[in-house]
Amino acid sequence: MDTKEFTKSIPMEQVSVEDDFWGGIQEKVRTRLIPYQWEALNDRIEGAEPSFCLRNFRVAAGTEQGEFAGCVFQDSDVAKWIEAAAYTLIAHPDPDLEATVDLAVDQIVSAQQPDGYLDTYYIINGLDKRFTNLRDNHELYCAGHMLEAAIAYFRATGKRKLLDAMLRYVDLIDQTFGAEEGKLHGYPGHEIIEMALMKLYDLTGEEKHRRLARYFIDQRGQSPLYFAQEKQEKPFRWASTSYGYQYYQAGKPVREQEEAQGHAVRAVYLYSGMADVARSTGDDSLWEALTGIWNNMTRKRMYITGAIGSSHVGEAFTYDYDLPNDTVYGETCASVGLVFLAKRMLSVKPKGEYGDVMERALYNGVISGMNLSGDRFFYVNPLEVLPEACRKDEGKRHVKPVRQKWFHCACCPPNLARLLSSLGDYAYGTRDRTLFVHLYMGSRVQVNFAGQGVCLGVETRYPWEGRIGIEVKDCGEAEWTLALRVPGWCRGYTLFLGQQEVTGELRDGYLYVTRRWKKGERLELALDMPAEEVRANPRVREDIGKVAVTRGPLVYCLEEADNGKDLHRVLLDQEGEWKALWEPDLLGGVVTLSGEGLIESEEDWGEDTLYRPAGEVTYENKKLKWIPYYAWANRGEGEMAVWIRKSS
Amino acid sequence: MDTKEFTKSIPMEQVSVEDDFWGGIQEKVRTRLIPYQWEALNDRIEGAEPSFCLRNFRVAAGTEQGEFAGCVFQDSDVAKWIEAAAYTLIAHPDPDLEATVDLAVDQIVSAQQPDGYLDTYYIINGLDKRFTNLRDNHELYCAGHMLEAAIAYFRATGKRKLLDAMLRYVDLIDQTFGAEEGKLHGYPGHEIIEMALMKLYDLTGEEKHRRLARYFIDQRGQSPLYFAQEKQEKPFRWASTSYGYQYYQAGKPVREQEEAQGHAVRAVYLYSGMADVARSTGDDSLWEALTGIWNNMTRKRMYITGAIGSSHVGEAFTYDYDLPNDTVYGETCASVGLVFLAKRMLSVKPKGEYGDVMERALYNGVISGMNLSGDRFFYVNPLEVLPEACRKDEGKRHVKPVRQKWFHCACCPPNLARLLSSLGDYAYGTRDRTLFVHLYMGSRVQVNFAGQGVCLGVETRYPWEGRIGIEVKDCGEAEWTLALRVPGWCRGYTLFLGQQEVTGELRDGYLYVTRRWKKGERLELALDMPAEEVRANPRVREDIGKVAVTRGPLVYCLEEADNGKDLHRVLLDQEGEWKALWEPDLLGGVVTLSGEGLIESEEDWGEDTLYRPAGEVTYENKKLKWIPYYAWANRGEGEMAVWIRKSS
Repeated sequence: MDTKEFTKSIPMEQVSVEDDFWGGIQEKVRTRLIPYQWEALNDRIEGAEPSFCLRNFRVAAGTEQGEFAGCVFQDSDVAKWIEAAAYTLIAHPDPDLEATVDLAVDQIVSAQQPDGYLDTYYIINGLDKRFTNLRDNHELYCAGHMLEAAIAYFRATGKRKLLDAMLRYVDLIDQTFGAEEGKLHGYPGHEIIEMALMKLYDLTGEEKHRRLARYFIDQRGQSPLYFAQEKQEKPFRWASTSYGYQYYQAGKPVREQEEAQGHAVRAVYLYSGMADVARSTGDDSLWEALTGIWNNMTRKRMYITGAIGSSHVGEAFTYDYDLPNDTVYGETCASVGLVFLAKRMLSVKPKGEYGDVMERALYNGVISGMNLSGDRFFYVNPLEVLPEACRKDEGKRHVKPVRQKWFHCACCPPNLARLLSSLGDYAYGTRDRTLFVHLYMGSRVQVNFAGQGVCLGVETRYPWEGRIGIEVKDCGEAEWTLALRVPGWCRGYTLFLGQQEVTGELRDGYLYVTRRWKKGERLELALDMPAEEVRANPRVREDIGKVAVTRGPLVYCLEEADNGKDLHRVLLDQEGEWKALWEPDLLGGVVTLSGEGLIESEEDWGEDTLYRPAGEVTYENKKLKWIPYYAWANRGEGEMAVWIRKSS
Repeated sequence: MDTKEFTKSIPMEQVSVEDDFWGGIQEKVRTRLIPYQWEALNDRIEGAEPSFCLRNFRVAAGTEQGEFAGCVFQDSDVAKWIEAAAYTLIAHPDPDLEATVDLAVDQIVSAQQPDGYLDTYYIINGLDKRFTNLRDNHELYCAGHMLEAAIAYFRATGKRKLLDAMLRYVDLIDQTFGAEEGKLHGYPGHEIIEMALMKLYDLTGEEKHRRLARYFIDQRGQSPLYFAQEKQEKPFRWASTSYGYQYYQAGKPVREQEEAQGHAVRAVYLYSGMADVARSTGDDSLWEALTGIWNNMTRKRMYITGAIGSSHVGEAFTYDYDLPNDTVYGETCASVGLVFLAKRMLSVKPKGEYGDVMERALYNGVISGMNLSGDRFFYVNPLEVLPEACRKDEGKRHVKPVRQKWFHCACCPPNLARLLSSLGDYAYGTRDRTLFVHLYMGSRVQVNFAGQGVCLGVETRYPWEGRIGIEVKDCGEAEWTLALRVPGWCRGYTLFLGQQEVTGELRDGYLYVTRRWKKGERLELALDMPAEEVRANPRVREDIGKVAVTRGPLVYCLEEADNGKDLHRVLLDQEGEWKALWEPDLLGGVVTLSGEGLIESEEDWGEDTLYRPAGEVTYENKKLKWIPYYAWANRGEGEMAVWIRKSS
């Protein structure tokens, strides 16, 4: 691969998100989620489990007495919060918030050891034990998150305190781990440091940072297996687990891996790091392995909502076409990580399918993780819920019928925060003199083609409407190319420049239009966006005989609030004529879909018959109303279903 | 209730089972399973986990050194083996087997303590701790099983050694537990002693035995809750568990219980004891509670195979209409216990539905627990299996795609053995001058109506054919009644006495024929037995839009061996014309069903598309072959499904 072929994403500093949909979500993250999480970090949320996160840093610094408390990776909570806060500061300078971050940074850095080490779990429990249980104890994971936080905060404010601290810690890690003799040949039990180091490399340009990222990726799963060796050497608090090494994506070297395996969040974080290294080094074999895994994951192991992780046991991938809707894990963090990965895939190759997956996850399985107020969260994102089952079937206890205040393991809310507050980083890309539009949102973007400044304004009611207006706000004289993603769901579109239809060139899911653009010109892309019934590959056992209803990038669902109980008895019996209606006062403003279906009658069964000869099944007419999946569970507890039976 | 109204079952001593179906199964139990289990008890099965069961008794007796090993209830394994062996001795005297049992009894009784106590777990771990953790440690459960063994062995051989030992132990238990001040107000964490004590009462007529059984039932769930008190008093090895008290059927007093709850085996053992006490005492309130629970269980929480226990977590009942086919527990022991219960319900009221449930469980969920050779066993009896899921989805690890050699917790095989070898106890009943036929099998039964000896010979190829010939082999002059169960699945039948059609009186599922019978007379009951498609109540989410195929008492299934992979893609599209064929060389001789169905095509999907617009679904014609459910997994590993999609 030639790295010069690669696409750069346009950083959020050059993108302002201005529309109601994403702008509204970002505003909720900024004004609700981030302050709410600060309270959580300081153990001030009534009825929620204390975080202990900042307290651990004070204990580690010796300014407070106590034991380590919380998850072994508790340090990462404040790191993610700082990262998210930093992103909001880029578009919304806020001296109070910045002062609060500074306070947090001070507490963090106070705990740093003379040699640069910075992980409260080991500082409190005994530094002699550090790096003795990489498999379980998340040191390198916490380091990765803190590094991302440091880079983001430096990016937002130019302040170096946390970044300098992390540069020292990274140096220590670099001295400790590596292929060289005398170093530990280990790698993290939970990935993320790989992509963090690549962000650092992109900032510093120092080869040692990229080399360390690459080492962690190359070493993973090599024989003899590090985790197996570690186990024999008195590791600190080795967890008893029946998970195999594939849980950690360490069953074999990454270049030999062909399937998305193990813990889904770990997996997509690793794959994101692999994409970063491939993008930065042009490593063909790494890219080849990655695309193989990507194809397996997105074509055989991904829910229609962009959720991944079919089983709550190990929060993990299972096997091809195993996509149960009611016992799914579908962790919010995993869909967030899938967006990280898709963005990185796009930066190597601008293929529509990468953008499609990014869009699918963002509009469905990611934002379903947060309620409309920004203060209740899902860890697990099911596609079918019977509240009674969540209470009475221990095998579905992980599925919550309503969003929760906070979690003992509070990874998801801050992950949402850091993704959504940096969404501007995801929408656009450039390569040479081409400007790629990956995501459609009301926004303004600025880019510079070799001295030629270009500014575009995008106006759209996407995802509610398929019309996207793009106005050239500023541009120079020379020719350049606009590349517009035509979503995979779209079966017809028109493109007009003023009153003139334009064809462009459709390649790999992007529509390329090259010309000498003029300031004030307005392009209108109109994507057909009818409600549509979608089927899953018939190999998916759980969806056979069923359809999901989608409209544009949004997956829809039926909720008890609109359709009553026993959604499994609903049967769709005709080519769905689903009437779309904008309802500004419902669920913060959504397009709903309405139409006719059937419901299998239970009346003639009574309560006393469990089995009887088949005979004729009777149905009643049933008015159905669909809402976007992401907005479910905002009206109290009730049933929900995405996949609905279709007559056959 | 008037106990004089009640029905007695006719003991197996007066019944000889002579047909190929049950006779063959009994022969396998006698010649394969029982010797095989003796090897298991003595830790001699290669590749299977050692039992340690008899070794524990030797350690407890001081004749061997060691620690207690195996499950806390390991003593019950040999008890169940003795019970099963004893039943076989009734029809098949076998001095070698009897000598082996005597050997086992000697080892058991050697471990008994001076005060009568006999539980190796506590004898080895410290007698001071006994009765300190009734909830978890199964002392009263082991006592119950050993008591059943003692009674059975006394019944078979007249030998009193084990019985006398257990009478002493029961006296100790009686002195220890009871409502009286100074006694422990406890009850077992796993029921069975209740029905064992009622068997003892039926043998001894001693009121103290019935009183103790009744005490354990009445005290259960009373406030203050014994298990909760116990927990505060340093119980020995209290298990950490998240199960609520309903797991032990102890959430409230049994008379206030309305649903089948908790661990399914515990539940049906308790209910069996309740039925015994109700039958023996005419206790209306107990019977009323029991029938409420029965109705809930059999009308809302029972699989079509007679399996019970919807969730592997807690091996437990969950909630109404929750009957998942692939994550089901359906423990063999639970269906065995359901047969125990149904028999006891019949002894209070001869209602066809009790016989129907007994038959449903016996012909399906019970005997599915054993392979055709009698040496491989299922603990879990799923109604749908994808072998890949059992290996790769931790949430389905409890489901095995093939029967196992033995189990660490080896409760199921010996439970099968003791039920199947005493099957004669289940087929017939009497009340006054009525002879009830609950189960149809080639057999001979003798009964005495106030001095009038009656002998019937039954000839039938049931369950393969619906014709049942009943010949009066011997009888006196006076009038008496034959009551034949008309199974709930039967929608038409004829009854002939010689060439003469007889109507009889159909009441509560039994056809009563009263006359002065003459020796040599032959009655022929012909039950229509077409293959039939059956639906589940539409409230059952997992079976909606599907049918099961049954014929007579047998539930059928599709297996990969006959029908290929991906059974979920099969669709039945017409009123099933399923052709029945006797195949003597298949699976030990079975009637198979064949016919036409469809299979949803995956060809036009390829490997790369996971979701796409609904469009037309294409099907291919598919020849289908059904086998009886109980015989599945006798031809290697493969898919299996009971519930199949039906076009709508």
